[in-house]
Order: sequence, then C-alpha cells, then structure tokens
Amino acid sequence: MTKTRIGILGYGNLGRGVELACRQNDDLELTALFTRRDPAQLKPLTEGVAVYAADDLAAHAGDIDVLILCGGSANDLPEQTPAYAGLFNVVDSFDTHANIPAHFANVDAAAQAGGKVAVISAGWDPGMFSLARLYASSVLPEGRDYTFWGRGVSQGHSDAIRRIDGVADARQYTVPVPAALEAVRNGENPELTTRQKHTRECFVVAKEGADQAAIEKAIVEMPNYFADYDTTVTFISQEELDRDHAGIPHGGSVIRSGATGENGEHTHVIEYSLKLDSNPEFTGSVLVACARAAHRLSQEGAVGCKTLFDIPPAYLSAESDEDLRAHLL
Amino acid sequence: MTKTRIGILGYGNLGRGVELACRQNDDLELTALFTRRDPAQLKPLTEGVAVYAADDLAAHAGDIDVLILCGGSANDLPEQTPAYAGLFNVVDSFDTHANIPAHFANVDAAAQAGGKVAVISAGWDPGMFSLARLYASSVLPEGRDYTFWGRGVSQGHSDAIRRIDGVADARQYTVPVPAALEAVRNGENPELTTRQKHTRECFVVAKEGADQAAIEKAIVEMPNYFADYDTTVTFISQEELDRDHAGIPHGGSVIRSGATGENGEHTHVIEYSLKLDSNPEFTGSVLVACARAAHRLSQEGAVGCKTLFDIPPAYLSAESDEDLRAHLL
Repeated sequence: MTKTRIGILGYGNLGRGVELACRQNDDLELTALFTRRDPAQLKPLTEGVAVYAADDLAAHAGDIDVLILCGGSANDLPEQTPAYAGLFNVVDSFDTHANIPAHFANVDAAAQAGGKVAVISAGWDPGMFSLARLYASSVLPEGRDYTFWGRGVSQGHSDAIRRIDGVADARQYTVPVPAALEAVRNGENPELTTRQKHTRECFVVAKEGADQAAIEKAIVEMPNYFADYDTTVTFISQEELDRDHAGIPHGGSVIRSGATGENGEHTHVIEYSLKLDSNPEFTGSVLVACARAAHRLSQEGAVGCKTLFDIPPAYLSAESDEDLRAHLL
Repeated sequence: MTKTRIGILGYGNLGRGVELACRQNDDLELTALFTRRDPAQLKPLTEGVAVYAADDLAAHAGDIDVLILCGGSANDLPEQTPAYAGLFNVVDSFDTHANIPAHFANVDAAAQAGGKVAVISAGWDPGMFSLARLYASSVLPEGRDYTFWGRGVSQGHSDAIRRIDGVADARQYTVPVPAALEAVRNGENPELTTRQKHTRECFVVAKEGADQAAIEKAIVEMPNYFADYDTTVTFISQEELDRDHAGIPHGGSVIRSGATGENGEHTHVIEYSLKLDSNPEFTGSVLVACARAAHRLSQEGAVGCKTLFDIPPAYLSAESDEDLRAHLL
C-alpha cells in the first residue's frame, strides 16, 4: 500500500493534534512539518519527520499529497489557504462562519487554477456539527435546529479576558443551560435568547494588587463576548489555574426537532453530541480524515474547493467500500 | 422548477410514511402509487395521485423519476429491487444487515445494465445510524462502537409473540439498559453481553381461557428472540393495548468512544441519537431525501447501486450548495 503523504503547516496545538492523528492511521504518513519559526527549534513527536521553513513550501510540492493548514482563522487561513491551494491539495479548519462563502470563493479559484482539491472548514463546528445539521434538516424539513456548545473552553473568550488590565491569566468555559437543553431534547421547540442557551464561567488570575471588582465588571459588561450572558467570575491563583484548568475540553450538541404525519402529530428528535477531552486533538483527527478524502478526490480527477457537505462519507474512511457495507452499514 | 416525480410501490405503514414525507418537500411530487392489492380499493391521502397495479409498473417508466420500494426485507425487496432497478432509479430500505452485500451485488448488476441509480438500505438502521458509525470510526480510528436500540416497538418481536398459541395480540418494546448506556457515555468502553445491553418488555393480550403461564414461558424461553434477554411479560386487555400501545415509536443511540494523544490519554465520546414518535414516518422521510439524491446522481450520469456512504450529504438537501455553506456549515 502506498501511504498518503501528509504535510503540516503550523505546529501549535492544532498542528500537534494533526501529528498525533496521523500516527493512528496506517494509510497516512506524516512527511514534513513547515513552520514560520526557526525549523531547528522545532522538535516533532514523530521520528523521521522533516522540518522545513514555511517559506520553502513550494520546493516541496512533489513530496506531499495533502498539506494540512493548522493556522488560525482570523489572520492565517484567509491568506494561507488560497496561497497554497494552487500548489497542494489542502485541508483547513477555517471556522469564521460568516466568512465561509468568501473564503470558499477565494480557495476555489486557486484550487481550480492549480488543478488541486481543497477541503475547507473541517473540524467539529464547522465540520461534524455542520453535517449533523445538514442530515437532520434534509430528513426533517419541518423542524427546528439548536446548537449548544460546551461545557468547554473557549479560547477566544479566554483571550479576551487576558487582554483586560490587571489580568495575568484566564480560562473561560461555555456551558449550556440544562433547562434549555432539556426543553429542546423533549421536542418543545422553545424560543431561546442567547442568555437562555448558555452561561459563561470565567476563572481569572489577577495580577498582584489589581482591582478585582474592576476586572469582574470589565468582563461581565464586555459587549459581544459576555454582556448577553449570565457570566460568573471566580478569582483563583496561577497554581490553581495550572492544576485544575490545563486541559482544552469542549463539545456540545446539535439537536433538530421536527414533525411528521397528517397534521404534524409525530415528533422526532435527532441529537448529535460530542464530549471531547481535547479540542485540538479531535479537530486534528477530523482534518486527517478529510486529508484522506482530499487525496482520493484528487486522484479521481476532482478539482476545486469542497466542504464535508460535498464529500461522500466513505471517502473519509480507510476501509474499503465492501468492508464498510459489510460491517458498518 | 421541475419537480422530481416520485412513485411508491407498496402502501403499508412505510408507503404511507413516504407519501407524508413527499408532502413536506416542495421539490418533490408524488406521482403514482403502485399496489399488489386492487388499485380501486386504495385511497391515497394525497389528492390527484394515480393508483396502478404493481404489474403495470413497466408501462409507467417514463412517468416517474424515482421509484421508492416500500416492501419488506424478508420477502419483497430481495426480488423487487433488482427487478425494478433496471427500469427506474430506485430507493429501498433493505435492512437485513447480514444480506446487504449480496443485495448490493444483485441490485448493482441490474442498475448498471439499465443505466439507473439505486440507493439501498436507506432509513435509520441501516441508514442514519450507519452514517453515524462511519463518520465516528473515520474520525476516531482507535475506539469502540456501541449501538443501542429503543425504547421502541420491534415489529418482528411483536409478530413472534402473536404466533404463540393462545395469544390474540401483542406489542414488544426493546429497551436499552440505563446502566450500560451510562457506562458507554462515560467513555468506560465496557464489554457488554446481549443481556446487559437491552431488556425486552412484552404487552400481551391472551385469548379467552388461554394458559397465561404457558404463554409467558413460551415467550421468555424463545431462542434468538427472547432467551438471551431479561424479558418481562405483562398481560393486558385488547382495549388497553389499543389505547396505550397504538403508536410505533422507536429510536436509539450510536455511541463511539475513542482515544487520542501521545498515549491515548484523551477520551472523546461521539453520540448520535434518535427519539422517533413514528418509525415508518421517519424512515419514509429518509427514503424521500435519498430519492432526491438518486435523481441528482442519475442526472449527472451516475449509474449503479449506492448507499448513504456513497452520497455527498448535500445531495440529500433541497437547498443549494451556496445556501448550505452560508447557513448550515
């Protein structure tokens, strides 16, 4: 069996998650890591993996079947994915929902021009949660979707707290409101405000002598991030933060409740839920399955930008179609 | 917009579920019902739908884009799907898991010969549950799958009870064992016997003067159906059965628990669950979404047998790719 050769651009939490996922898939081989830092300083977990400067990517186009882009959605991916989609089959986890159509158009133009396949917005939301929404709405057209996130760490909200004067460190958890979740699971189709769906729990390390009351006020009144939520702020020591909040768990549920029958008399509830100990490792695992699919699509002659909506599910699996039908169908 | 013209063969619970689902999808039009009964005796819910004898199907090949086969997996579909897959694009809900590879081969040969698309084994298990198993195992290759069914009515088990001497009517519910479900949801990866996963609840109407103890013994000791389970038998009146057990609810959960990390230190639990008030109406809704996909695939020039594993998810939806990316991704 010829293994699919994977490259990674960016070796942060997500890049490391992709590396770990490659090790669980015998049909894939992590060939090279590309970094904007000094390549000599980067020590991969996997033996034998070459480390190159990101600037040298183009020289390695022949060494890699799929390049997985592990940068951030705010600044990295809007530039990187279109830049590399003409040279490599690529996969990214672009997750700024409102900008997906524009990102798709940019990446599609590059991939079409280069004759490559690009899979964007892979991960769990967008990604597995999007699939759950699509399948459920296709099967139950008369219904209503709800997405709950958490309990899990929001990196963006944690960062927002860290930028407040007097804050040394912080960790923010997004938490679904149990009563809301239960009403949705019961098929009650409630109208829910932002505040009724999620609460936000903040664990904050204040700098020596900082005004804790001022920090708390700055958090709970912060527009977009916290003002629309019931937010709790708990001050703890750096030691407690490091000891009790070192993980990056996340998850949530996509629920669709719909009706069928002569007069909508039958209710159906579809729920897809994730409980993830490590957000970046799970996201990395999704990216790697998408890399397998991207390579297959490319070998079949497909070109252009795709999302999980466009990929036949069997393409994500290492098993043959015959085995899948015999064992998983 | 030209609507996709749907035909139904077989007007039992499932055929009626497909009819109701067609009414929820503006891009689809139920054109004709085909029955092995006397067509004059069949009264569709939908106005203007033609009713024909099943023997006349071939004469209507030009009137229909997709024929949905609503017969049973034991006797009808193994004959019908290969017989009609050369004349029509077809969709079936063939659910005898062990025989899927043989059914696939028979249907594929017919569909290839006729230049048509056939989608087999659509519904929820096989169907949506199969998709949940495939996606989860692709994303978490080091893990373990569990499928729990219920609480719901098993038609096959209810029929088996009805065949016992002295039984007038019966309804059997399959029920997951709560402790097993909880252990799996917690990521404990338990080894579970058949008995530890599900219990069986039987509500039985005995005939006048029948020996209830003998009936109960015949049920709980019945091989394959009940002997391997903890089974409870409750005798009730026909009035109680009709009043309290008229529905055909079902559902269940597919759960995969897997590990990632340097040493498998992070656990992830993926759960897909269904709570269905009406098993045949939900199954019918899945079949109708697959009919949409079958027609699209056929229009693109695809031929042969497919399952949900082979269908890009977007093909199941009435929305455009652009709308799906903008609103559901």
